[in-house]
Order: sequence, then C-alpha cells, then structure tokens
Amino acid sequence: MGLDSNAPDLETLTSSFTHRDWQDVTETDDPVRFAMVGLGWWTREQTMPAVEAAALCETAVVVSSSREKGEEVAEEFPTVEHAITYEEFHDGAASDAYDAVYVCTPNAKHLAFVETAADLEKAVLCEKPMEASVDAAERLVEAADAGGITLMIAYRMHTEPAVRRARELLEAGAIGEPLLIHGNMSEPILELVPDPNQWRLDPDLVGYGTSVMDIGVYSLNTSRYILGADPVRVQASVRSVEEAFADVPDEHAAFQVDFPDTLAVCTASQNAYSASHLRITGSEGELLIEPAFYPWDDRALRLSRGGTSVDIEFEQVDQMEEEVEYFAHCLLTDEQPYADGEHGLTDMRAIAAIYEAAETGEAVTLE
Amino acid sequence: MGLDSNAPDLETLTSSFTHRDWQDVTETDDPVRFAMVGLGWWTREQTMPAVEAAALCETAVVVSSSREKGEEVAEEFPTVEHAITYEEFHDGAASDAYDAVYVCTPNAKHLAFVETAADLEKAVLCEKPMEASVDAAERLVEAADAGGITLMIAYRMHTEPAVRRARELLEAGAIGEPLLIHGNMSEPILELVPDPNQWRLDPDLVGYGTSVMDIGVYSLNTSRYILGADPVRVQASVRSVEEAFADVPDEHAAFQVDFPDTLAVCTASQNAYSASHLRITGSEGELLIEPAFYPWDDRALRLSRGGTSVDIEFEQVDQMEEEVEYFAHCLLTDEQPYADGEHGLTDMRAIAAIYEAAETGEAVTLE
Repeated sequence: MGLDSNAPDLETLTSSFTHRDWQDVTETDDPVRFAMVGLGWWTREQTMPAVEAAALCETAVVVSSSREKGEEVAEEFPTVEHAITYEEFHDGAASDAYDAVYVCTPNAKHLAFVETAADLEKAVLCEKPMEASVDAAERLVEAADAGGITLMIAYRMHTEPAVRRARELLEAGAIGEPLLIHGNMSEPILELVPDPNQWRLDPDLVGYGTSVMDIGVYSLNTSRYILGADPVRVQASVRSVEEAFADVPDEHAAFQVDFPDTLAVCTASQNAYSASHLRITGSEGELLIEPAFYPWDDRALRLSRGGTSVDIEFEQVDQMEEEVEYFAHCLLTDEQPYADGEHGLTDMRAIAAIYEAAETGEAVTLE
Repeated sequence: MGLDSNAPDLETLTSSFTHRDWQDVTETDDPVRFAMVGLGWWTREQTMPAVEAAALCETAVVVSSSREKGEEVAEEFPTVEHAITYEEFHDGAASDAYDAVYVCTPNAKHLAFVETAADLEKAVLCEKPMEASVDAAERLVEAADAGGITLMIAYRMHTEPAVRRARELLEAGAIGEPLLIHGNMSEPILELVPDPNQWRLDPDLVGYGTSVMDIGVYSLNTSRYILGADPVRVQASVRSVEEAFADVPDEHAAFQVDFPDTLAVCTASQNAYSASHLRITGSEGELLIEPAFYPWDDRALRLSRGGTSVDIEFEQVDQMEEEVEYFAHCLLTDEQPYADGEHGLTDMRAIAAIYEAAETGEAVTLE
C-alpha cells in the first residue's frame, strides 16, 4: 500500500509547519515583567532561564519563603530587582515592579497566591495541576474572574512543536479518524528530587495523589489538546508499594480516558524508569510522539501510514521558553490564552474522577 | 547515566540467546501427521505452509465443510492423503492417517472437533481463543482430559524470538521490576477478510465479541507469558460504531489488566490501522516490541536503560512454523506444552471478565 488520495499532501508533511503560528509580536520595548513565586528547582532551572531567553518577558521579582534564598536567586539573574518573601508578596510589596505572577509552589498553595495576584490585578501563569482539589481549583478560577485578570495554566505541550505538528497532521487527515491513544509518563522522582519528605508525596500539599496529578496529566491534557475533545468517562487502577509513597495512593497508576470518539489508555509512575510517549492510532495511520513530555529529552514524532513510517522533522525548542513567550504574547496582544481557567478545571475534574474510579473500582462519568 | 552494575552482562545481551532453547529433537523419521480442521485463509496461507516447512510434522489430512474445497487444498500440498468433510471427521474417517488435529474453525465450533479428537485419542492444537465462552472452553478442557490427549492452545508468541528474548532480558534484570505495560493490536478486518458476514463479526460464532477475543488476547497473553504472572483484575471500555460491527460490542476496545505487581493497559480494534506493540516499563528500563504480533511485519525489540536505547538483534522466523514445530516436539518427546488447556482457560476467564467490566462499568476481580 502507498499513500492514498486521502493522505496529507507533501506540503502539509514537509513545508507548511510554523511552530509559533500564534506569534505576531516578536519584540517589545515593554516586556512582561514576572514575579516568580516559589523558587524550587523547576523555577530556577527551567522557568527563569527560559524567561531570560525569551524576547517578550523578563523576571523582575522573586518571591520565596526565605529572603536569603530569594536574594541568592536574584544574584544569578540580573533583571531581578526585588527579592521578597511570601508575606511581603501578600502585602503587595514591589507590586509596581511586575505585571504577571508565575505560581510554582506546592499544588495546595496555588490558590492563596492567585487570590493575591487577582487583588493586585496581575496576570497569572499557574503551574499544573491548578490546585490540590477541584474545589480549590474552582475557587482559583473564581478569584481570577473576580479580579478580571488573565489566567493561564502552565501546560507546556500546547506550544511544543512535536505536539502542534501532530495535531496539525491529525487535522489534515494523516491518520484518518483518531480511535485509540496510549500515553505514558514515568520518572524516578526520588532520584530527580532526592527528598523523601518532598511535597509531591505529601497529600496535604499535592492533593489527591502524586503520579496522576503531577505527570499523568500530561497524557490526559495532551490527548485533549490534539483531539480537540474532552473526556466523558474514566476508569483507573493505582498502587503504592514503596514506603516513601505510603501516604499517596498512586506510586504507579493506570487509567482509561474515554473521549467521545477515541479510547485512551494511560500510565504514570513517580517511581519507574524515566520515559514518555503519546501514541494515536487512527483508522488510516498512527502518530507516535516519543520521547514526548520531558524538556531534557529531544522530542521525536513518527507518522505511520500505508505500511511505512516517516520521522517528522521539527525544531527542538526550550519548552518553557515557548510557554512563557506565548503567555507574554497573549498579554501584549490582549488575547485569551488557550489554557485558561476553564481548560484547567476540565483536567482537575477528570483527575479527581480518576482517583475516585481507582478507589471505587467503578467507571466515573464526566459531564 | 551509563549501564549500572545491575545491568545484564554483555553476554546476556549479545550471545546467549537461542530462540529454540526448547528443542532437543531436530529431525525425525516419524513426523507428527496433522489433520487440518477448517480451511480458511489462516490455515491455508499461514499454518499449512508452516507445517510444510517444519521438520517434525506434516499435513496428512484436510477437513472442511466442503469436499471440493478440501480436494482443492489437498492438490496444493503433496503430503495430504485425504480430504474429508466435517461429518466424516466426526465419524472417524481416515483416523489412521493422522496423529494430531489442528482446529481453526470459528470459535464456537472448536469444542465439537476437540471432543471428537479426544474420542479418537488424537492430540490437539486448538486456535485461540479456545472457544466462544468460558463454559464451552471448560468443557473443551474436560474433553481433552477425559480422552487423555495432549492439548495445546495455539499462541504463537510463546515461540516468537522477539518475545522470548524480551522475557529473557526481563528475567536477567534488564529493566528492573516490570511495573507498567502498554499493548495494542489493531487491524482493518474488513480489508483483510472482505466479507461483512464473516464469523468474527457474528456473536453466535465468535463469542463475547471480536476485538478483545480475536486480537486483544495477544496483549493479554503475551504480558502473562513475559511476566510469568496472571491477571487479578480487569476494567474495560468497548464501542461499536460502524454498521458492520453492530452485532458485536467491541469494534474498538480499551482494557486494563492488573497483574499482582504490574499494571497493564491495552487496546484492540478490528477497524483501525494495522499496528501492534507491547511495551514494558520497569523500575530501571523499558522493553518495546514493535512491531509485535503480526507474522507479516518483521518484529523488532528495543531495550532502553540508563538513558540510552539498543536494538536487540534476533532471527526473524515464520511464527507458525515455530509454533507447529514446538507442538510436534512436545508430542515426540512426550512433554506437556506450555500453553495447555488451563493456560488457555485463564485467558478465557480474563476475556469474559473484560466484556463483563465493559458492560457494567465496574472492575471485575479474577478468582
């Protein structure tokens, strides 16, 4: 079998892709000035270098539990003018020095920072998952709405070229109707963050659990993004075996997400070999993104169709740079981010349903 | 990260693999003589050429609903001495001319042929799934036991080098503890067998359904084989959309199989792009067999560990030749086949539970 007449044309396959098709503004004299809230490794090693490299934003303020830690980080990044504490942030300190707040604290602490940001009328880029519970996530969205601020949930896959390219190919009919999805994200979290008392393993800080909340959401959300559809039903099995995971239900997780026209099966583990993939099998072909989700693994995309496979070329980018640039671009052009509060709430409700299904052994239907 | 001290040594990785480690006898003057029951495309295009190529067996008799069809097939294969009808088979015709019976009829017709074979004291190689229901499969095993015959269920993955190699690597600790499994088998059955009235879409002949019964069993059974473990709980979602699949529940299927220490997620579809894979993610690495299950796709096996991947070399074989040679070898050496009746029953019970789970939306516990 060769490529048939329903196949995407060569131009679609080779030349038409622009990974920043959202971008009109490429430079500015008035960059979006961030206050970085929560100075863990992700903020320091991923987000702040990305903001430094981006054209449309910069870090002006760092906010931490400890002034010393903030001052230490401030010294590494020359654009930072103020290092303030969480208490000072809530009191409105240095609020003239920033336009937007990046929230990267433990999940259960997001709401308070977003409420303050909304009071101060600052835009918010909030890490996923939004909060520790659906209830807190709903209040987070309400706070943002009440403050009239722009709220974006920090999904870095929406601006990842491999994912955008896959979505474009799917929309061009490259694999026919998408029917089946496989997704996995797994990592040895205790090697990445060698602290058995870390917040990701503390139910008071992480929320319903660790693997589905923190990394299972990548398979879930990226499937939603590529399909342009939302879950209607979930099922799940979760297990915790090792002592360090005794307080969370899901050291390892397997879950099914039924979409209106597609059946997805996903796994996630905070205590397994580091790996990630997303595979979409259609009526006429298959798309495999592998590696898919980790910024430190070069992403790859393969299209199979007509019995042959092609590796799709695209630019490797800094995922966080794409994300913060997109967020800044939304603010500069007064556009609503794709991943707004409602978008994030859909994931929170699906995640809560996954944990409920795992606990009850019954499928949970989503409206 | 490099390969650490727990990694399999280079000899395990490169030189120690013999895909027929079960084989002592390589030639015989007294080959196992098959009666082939059911002369559909699989028997004619896969099994009979495989038997012809194998050293330890030959086809002596063909058994079909129509004498003409049988005689036509007999002409293509010079070792065939008798072409008889189903009725004649049940009457014991030509029973001195064969030692073993290969049963490849619609699922719901297996039992009657195995009962006759047992009465005639002929060994049986019975296609999977064993029968249309757990009840019929149990009666099939009882009949074989009562007749004191050797019964093997025709799982061709147990003698597939890619699968045996994966199992060997897993047992050698190559990926640490196996934690998560992804499996898929999908095909456009109406293109492979262009008949909308085919038995695979007829609930009276196929049994509980089509995709899980006919091809989902590959992910299920191969996982069991590689792990050396049996399922303890299943969950599932199935859907039929197209008119040709209106009488079966599972044009498309997604199901979870919980093993004692491993969570598996699987998909199967009789109306999707032809593809197959089995992926095992462990605590220290990952094994990916892709393509995995179709004899016409060269199989491939990749081991990932320590941040790097290696393609594992092995011989491409005729899957059916391996299977029939193994079966004949068991008979010639008086050994019990790995995939005996009880082995097949475990799959039948898991499959029935998968359909039950899909219908009720509730996890079904096995045993």
